Amino acid sequence: MSTKKFLLEEKDIPTAWYNIVADMKNKPLPILNPQTKQPMKEEDLYPLFSKAASHQEMNTTDAWIEIPEEVRELYKVWRPTPLVRAYGLEKMLDTPAHIYFKNESVSPIGSHKLNSAIAQAYYCKQEGVTNITTETGAGQWGAALSYAAKAFGLELAVYMVKVSYHQKPYRRSIMQTFGAQVIASPSMSTKAGRKILTDHPNYQGSLGTAISEAVELAMQVPNCKYTLGSVLNHVMLHQTVIGLEAEKQMEMAGEYPDVVIGCFGGGSNFSGITFPFLRHKLTEGKDIRVIAAEPASCPKLTRGQFQYDFGDEAGYTPLIPMFTLGHNFAPANIHAGGLRYHGAGSIVSQLMKDGLMNAADVKQLDTFKAATMFAQAEGIIPAPESSHAIAVAIREAEEAKKEGKARTILFNLSGHGLIDMAAYDQYLAGDLTNYEVTDEDVAKNLEELEKIIG
Amino acid sequence: MSTKKFLLEEKDIPTAWYNIVADMKNKPLPILNPQTKQPMKEEDLYPLFSKAASHQEMNTTDAWIEIPEEVRELYKVWRPTPLVRAYGLEKMLDTPAHIYFKNESVSPIGSHKLNSAIAQAYYCKQEGVTNITTETGAGQWGAALSYAAKAFGLELAVYMVKVSYHQKPYRRSIMQTFGAQVIASPSMSTKAGRKILTDHPNYQGSLGTAISEAVELAMQVPNCKYTLGSVLNHVMLHQTVIGLEAEKQMEMAGEYPDVVIGCFGGGSNFSGITFPFLRHKLTEGKDIRVIAAEPASCPKLTRGQFQYDFGDEAGYTPLIPMFTLGHNFAPANIHAGGLRYHGAGSIVSQLMKDGLMNAADVKQLDTFKAATMFAQAEGIIPAPESSHAIAVAIREAEEAKKEGKARTILFNLSGHGLIDMAAYDQYLAGDLTNYEVTDEDVAKNLEELEKIIG
Repeated sequence: MSTKKFLLEEKDIPTAWYNIVADMKNKPLPILNPQTKQPMKEEDLYPLFSKAASHQEMNTTDAWIEIPEEVRELYKVWRPTPLVRAYGLEKMLDTPAHIYFKNESVSPIGSHKLNSAIAQAYYCKQEGVTNITTETGAGQWGAALSYAAKAFGLELAVYMVKVSYHQKPYRRSIMQTFGAQVIASPSMSTKAGRKILTDHPNYQGSLGTAISEAVELAMQVPNCKYTLGSVLNHVMLHQTVIGLEAEKQMEMAGEYPDVVIGCFGGGSNFSGITFPFLRHKLTEGKDIRVIAAEPASCPKLTRGQFQYDFGDEAGYTPLIPMFTLGHNFAPANIHAGGLRYHGAGSIVSQLMKDGLMNAADVKQLDTFKAATMFAQAEGIIPAPESSHAIAVAIREAEEAKKEGKARTILFNLSGHGLIDMAAYDQYLAGDLTNYEVTDEDVAKNLEELEKIIG
Repeated sequence: MSTKKFLLEEKDIPTAWYNIVADMKNKPLPILNPQTKQPMKEEDLYPLFSKAASHQEMNTTDAWIEIPEEVRELYKVWRPTPLVRAYGLEKMLDTPAHIYFKNESVSPIGSHKLNSAIAQAYYCKQEGVTNITTETGAGQWGAALSYAAKAFGLELAVYMVKVSYHQKPYRRSIMQTFGAQVIASPSMSTKAGRKILTDHPNYQGSLGTAISEAVELAMQVPNCKYTLGSVLNHVMLHQTVIGLEAEKQMEMAGEYPDVVIGCFGGGSNFSGITFPFLRHKLTEGKDIRVIAAEPASCPKLTRGQFQYDFGDEAGYTPLIPMFTLGHNFAPANIHAGGLRYHGAGSIVSQLMKDGLMNAADVKQLDTFKAATMFAQAEGIIPAPESSHAIAVAIREAEEAKKEGKARTILFNLSGHGLIDMAAYDQYLAGDLTNYEVTDEDVAKNLEELEKIIG
């Protein structure tokens, strides 16, 4: 039994976020105004987001964006996070591979989401905003933002996807304990919610619908902004602290990863762990593989299509260039609520299109098998989302074993699963199933999308 | 908003546990064989515990006991834990006091219990034991031991107090995910369980009953030992890593605590944080106050009686010199399941008797009020158990404010409450109540005890 954590000091918390767009030869296509189909400008985003976030969203030139001192100060509550050599898992798999994971589960909220929540709440506060709204899937983002909102004295309303609202009541309670208002989505409190409930009375919600509701509320309340936990460029930016720390820690370990893996919903933790490593590929031609691990039931990167689509279900957001299954795609009720999203953000979609990264899909039962192995080997119960990354890391380690070759694998443990135990219960009882979408489903959905957007 | 963590490096994980008994002028009274009423010897404990644990239990001479390298290695999974200056809470209370907390909630299991679980599992493995049993209240100890048992390849059966089994199903799932067998106590699987279920068919269990069941099973299964998460001297010993680290960290902070606070159930986290500081009082006459924070509904230190009593409900254990409410005391169903125990271990009881420490009781509603304040101020949702310590720390800070004087307060955050959110829900909904025992209840219970034990 041996254990190796690589620990940084507080002074090593990055002082700047890494903006990968500045280093991309092919920049992401612009987001478009859905009415005019013209590229949107920074100012067009001001009604929705803080000015600082809007500026970051559109910044294509500065590779490094300074982290405000107040944000770094709050990062110190739990950052830097450990990088861990997963000796236990290596032993269990009897693999020559070296497996490392960045442990973002040590945040007080249990996931990486605080990295952007603190930044977004800070900017809103700076600009005199008093109220914010957001959506949340499994509740990780909502819980993080609830704490960040409280820390900066902002009022927060969270639309929580209904299936998760019931599957994960404890995350709802966490948000309420921090003083946030939580509404199950779809709800009757918005036009978007009422419409989908009228069309599909038993619809259990999706991130796309919850975003519509949160956006709608933000537009109606005075001095209120909307915040998003994933998909957008500024969120990816804030999450790069994960990979920037991991870069230094891999150096401490004296290794460089052959492959870097993150689970993939809207892309926040994936971008966080991988972009700082992709930088070496973009700027120095470094040979490194990067893999997005997505659910087989929501396979936008492996089976979706690259095209303009809405970020939300009701069509309130700008048109985003994305790998998408269609904003009208209704994902199955898997326990990895944070990955139930129809599309990928514009940066990741461009990287994918340019062959700079890969994607792999994982079935629900395989994720729980991987999660249980990891828990028993490393003592940490992973979030169902993170378990997708673990499953792909295990695949990589098994391949290395077959080849009889060493391989250095790094994945992001984006969160712990202590509040997802009902899912583990079902798995242990044999009550969980796999969900897969058929090619026909995907094709049909995308055909409908063509009709809406063209 | 400012944040200050005091962090140690892995090399600073203590290399020896501190055995306070060696420094006590009045040693704890010996534990007695209930039949003969004669002091028990180390060998008398071998049928129940590992030899190493039995030896530690009886060691009254060595102040320092070396921590095995394999145990230190596993401690590195999460240790050293941070010491945090609670600036947020200080600001919220507008107090001149300086409040520090040792954050044991960062363990992958979410509490301090791993400190002893790893040591006990290690010793059992070393001695060729294959099966272990235990009891658990809220499930923190059971979860910790489940991981430790898996790490050392031991089979584990856990008797979980029935009220917690239902209140905290996620902790049951965590144990099962690590591969442990979990039985709600009282159960029909033991004589002790059957007896109490016959007498009180709806009894929701207590730690005392669960201990009886776990001990009974351990005596019946070949090559099986019993392990306990609190009360006993060797458990207190293992937990001293908490205070030993905190001692160094308070030095880093350039302060020395005026008062050290731990919540109190059987004494494990309390002893862990306080004994290394009490050492300065015992050996150098240092002026320091030490407070055990216990539930008003289970007030053994504030209202119990010092006398010999059983450690369990059925009377299977040796007689222990303890402050007790009587082993037949049925505590109210408060959410702080880990504090629902009738007595204090022999070391703490002797310290209490000699006036070397104090105790304070806290009502359930006050603990949740304190917990919510702490969560909003510091971003960490505390366990209901730990919230007793927080409530007393807040009292101390408020007193300091009244006096207009600085005061340095240190408390142990023994665990997080992410799995106790159902309790927070009830609190937020106004559905929680206080439970108190009357003086008559206590007197009547102790009278019965006299009849049994004399």
